[in-house]
Amino acid sequence: MSGWPITFQDVLAARRRIRPYLPSTPLRRYAALEAAVGGGIQIAVKHENHNPTNAFKARNGVSVLTALGADEMRRGVVTATRGNHGAGVAWAASRFGVAATVCLPRGNNPEKNEAMRGFGATLVEEGRDYDESLAVATRLVAERGLRMIHPSNDPLIVAGAATFTLEILEELTSLDAMVIAVGGGSQAVGAMTVLRALKPEVEVFGVQAAGARAIYESWKARTPVAGLGAETFADGLATRGVYEGTFDALCEGLEDFVTVTEGEIAEAVRILLSTTHNLVEGAGAAGLAGLIKLRDRLKGKTVAIVLSGGNIDAATLKRVVNREI
Amino acid sequence: MSGWPITFQDVLAARRRIRPYLPSTPLRRYAALEAAVGGGIQIAVKHENHNPTNAFKARNGVSVLTALGADEMRRGVVTATRGNHGAGVAWAASRFGVAATVCLPRGNNPEKNEAMRGFGATLVEEGRDYDESLAVATRLVAERGLRMIHPSNDPLIVAGAATFTLEILEELTSLDAMVIAVGGGSQAVGAMTVLRALKPEVEVFGVQAAGARAIYESWKARTPVAGLGAETFADGLATRGVYEGTFDALCEGLEDFVTVTEGEIAEAVRILLSTTHNLVEGAGAAGLAGLIKLRDRLKGKTVAIVLSGGNIDAATLKRVVNREI
Repeated sequence: MSGWPITFQDVLAARRRIRPYLPSTPLRRYAALEAAVGGGIQIAVKHENHNPTNAFKARNGVSVLTALGADEMRRGVVTATRGNHGAGVAWAASRFGVAATVCLPRGNNPEKNEAMRGFGATLVEEGRDYDESLAVATRLVAERGLRMIHPSNDPLIVAGAATFTLEILEELTSLDAMVIAVGGGSQAVGAMTVLRALKPEVEVFGVQAAGARAIYESWKARTPVAGLGAETFADGLATRGVYEGTFDALCEGLEDFVTVTEGEIAEAVRILLSTTHNLVEGAGAAGLAGLIKLRDRLKGKTVAIVLSGGNIDAATLKRVVNREI
Repeated sequence: MSGWPITFQDVLAARRRIRPYLPSTPLRRYAALEAAVGGGIQIAVKHENHNPTNAFKARNGVSVLTALGADEMRRGVVTATRGNHGAGVAWAASRFGVAATVCLPRGNNPEKNEAMRGFGATLVEEGRDYDESLAVATRLVAERGLRMIHPSNDPLIVAGAATFTLEILEELTSLDAMVIAVGGGSQAVGAMTVLRALKPEVEVFGVQAAGARAIYESWKARTPVAGLGAETFADGLATRGVYEGTFDALCEGLEDFVTVTEGEIAEAVRILLSTTHNLVEGAGAAGLAGLIKLRDRLKGKTVAIVLSGGNIDAATLKRVVNREI
């Protein structure tokens, strides 16, 4: 298992740490959604949007915070984020009385910023994009001795993200495939870690926004491809490259990888609104968009998708609802 | 307690029946929401929109279905609804292998209809409005011996709705008031039943849409007032009169009662979207709209509101987001 960042034992340990703070999220089916998608596909919808912070990242925050030593807790944690990861860290840190500093680019989504402030985080708005914020966070680690919590490269993060797949398998007796959005890859690598241990025949498909295709092109080339943009309204997927902690595992484990357009992601948000009456952000709808793209291949199968987050801001929602995306 | 439809013991019994099927829903605070409302009000948000069927009515359905005799289960159940009540009954009935017939007016919200069909209910679309559907359901009781499940007049329904207030009190150490939407009154009467037993100092305020003001005018007059319309986009509140099962208790227990305009309800939906990133239907936002109306009176207090349901249809959501309501 070269390059596999975590083991199944790490997932079980993360689940033991997380469980007192986060109950299982619901796994539901919607006849209207299955009718809209067609192909006789049974769709199990994992409601990570029901977590506190409205995203699976709450798991990741708790997974790391519960594993810190006393000294790290005293010094505080720092991270870089566009939103959900920072909210997950901030929420978890506040639960354990740990100071959280969150670095984000200038002009970041104000609704996501306000949520992080609401969880008590200190925000550092500096840099033009996520990568520059990460550099700021790295600087603060050096200057202040803070504990960095990287959104994808930390094994504790991947183990946290893996716990929702464990919950899915506990509930579903039959499962053929999962279609999972890949920004940094923690959800997909977490899922594959669990599936390899418990149900290796389940196929995992990755989905990324076509406008943020670096990780997709890298996966196809089996080597990191640089110099591509990250333009998508699904800000949770706006990554410009691969992460060393997850890339090898993605190459080894994903059955296939597809990209979806902005319009396809927006349509998936609209379908989820009208058939499940759940609010999802772009990244949270990407799994459905990918499933629709893979419809012929998944015909008649039981497929799980993850509503990974619901934090779409009002301005973006308006554009989606009005079919301007 | 003349006219009080249920006792606290009934609520405890309902909770025992419901608990195996419905975990507690989250109770959360949102700094951004409290900042938007102002007045130093601490707002505890009960997420009934997280229930299966996206509404508290799932509790009501389970409360009744788990209390039926074998003969009633064999004959099947019938109800009349505009949506959430029928979905709650249909969902619960499907869990227990009971046939559910749901009567609704012609031209009812297609998204709500499809959800009920998805839960396996047989739909009978007949009549011009809810009252006429209720007459159809009553006819089917006579013709087919079905067990009627009235949305408000059944003590098992009120006891089911009461269980979310029990959960709120288990979690909150301090609570000054609740602001609750009153369509038929099951939520408010359920809440007051629990509060009278456990925390009688908590004030309960009722809210109804100004366009469906019959129950409000009746409450003020302390006698049923007829002949008023039920025009509101909050279809869960579109009632034309009072229900004998809840009216006396509302008169006895509500601290005060306010009405809110369509614009105020829509604004509350928008505030909840942008500050909590939860999708709510009009009835689910009415509590917040009422809280905002009562802001001066509730200054500095801890107040619970209930996101009672999330089943807003796509067309209505679009109008809300575009400020056409």
